[in-house]
Amino acid sequence: MELTKEDKKIISNSIRDIKDFPKEGIVFKDITTLLNNKEAYQTLMNHLEERYNSYNLDYVAGIDSRGFIFGAALADRLKVGFVPVRKKGKLPSTTVCEKYELEYGFDEVEIHLDAFPKAKARVLLIDDLIATGGTANAAAKLIKHVNADLVEVCFLLNLTFLDGAKKVREHAPVYSILDI
Amino acid sequence: MELTKEDKKIISNSIRDIKDFPKEGIVFKDITTLLNNKEAYQTLMNHLEERYNSYNLDYVAGIDSRGFIFGAALADRLKVGFVPVRKKGKLPSTTVCEKYELEYGFDEVEIHLDAFPKAKARVLLIDDLIATGGTANAAAKLIKHVNADLVEVCFLLNLTFLDGAKKVREHAPVYSILDI
Repeated sequence: MELTKEDKKIISNSIRDIKDFPKEGIVFKDITTLLNNKEAYQTLMNHLEERYNSYNLDYVAGIDSRGFIFGAALADRLKVGFVPVRKKGKLPSTTVCEKYELEYGFDEVEIHLDAFPKAKARVLLIDDLIATGGTANAAAKLIKHVNADLVEVCFLLNLTFLDGAKKVREHAPVYSILDI
Repeated sequence: MELTKEDKKIISNSIRDIKDFPKEGIVFKDITTLLNNKEAYQTLMNHLEERYNSYNLDYVAGIDSRGFIFGAALADRLKVGFVPVRKKGKLPSTTVCEKYELEYGFDEVEIHLDAFPKAKARVLLIDDLIATGGTANAAAKLIKHVNADLVEVCFLLNLTFLDGAKKVREHAPVYSILDI
């Protein structure tokens, strides 16, 4: 299920460009103006629900922390469980951890070892934006590592010129709502 | 609208105690086992929707980052906007910032100055847990500072022995689903 042109415009127009954030030369895609616009937020959630209704998902996993927003709302709509993939040190029980490279240095994400109580769980991974794909790739690995079935990875925004989706596609199909 | 005894039990039983996290002597309330349990998650969301349906809210604001989970899902259910209150340095546009005391030192939360496009917006603030109330109190101040009408502050869990709700009640009524 693809988004209609009209709905794409509603969502696209609600996202704001902020120049030089977090540092000079970068144009940051600000989704807070989508979220505080009830028409745009409902349009996005309706689309996500329509698309994933037929996927027979058991869980939606969201990446810390903007992925929590869309992920938790979508899990609620689909009446399935929600699972957070978190930055290191935030999850209280036994975790598996995946390191990934940043421009300078490394970062790590974690998931609870018992994150998916159902065996062979069908999981959708979601985040707001994919740039170089480091975090999403690490999160996808974690989901497979705990023996879940990663059905698709979904982004609101894909910065296609950075081609981060290429890495993630090694693990599962990638769907992005807006390509930039 | 209060929660039924039976529903309270479903929610309460789904939250897991983790000893000595994040440090020795502390019992951490792990809500990931509520979120990955679709019955418990739906029970909680149904209750929140029932309670707040009649409040004529314009926005739900959630505190970084577990407040994003319940806040975004509730905003979606009520078909209103969602507004994140974030840790310092995460929001890209012009913000107002509020400092608050921790056990050792200080922390800060921020909100966008234009977070609520509607004038005199009716806002619910939500987070997963209130302990000493420092973060929630600062978040409540921020919402009032940008001229919104803070209608209620809602927590899933209230550690009543720390009496953090006392501070927050100076700004708005406080509702907690489970008192510990």
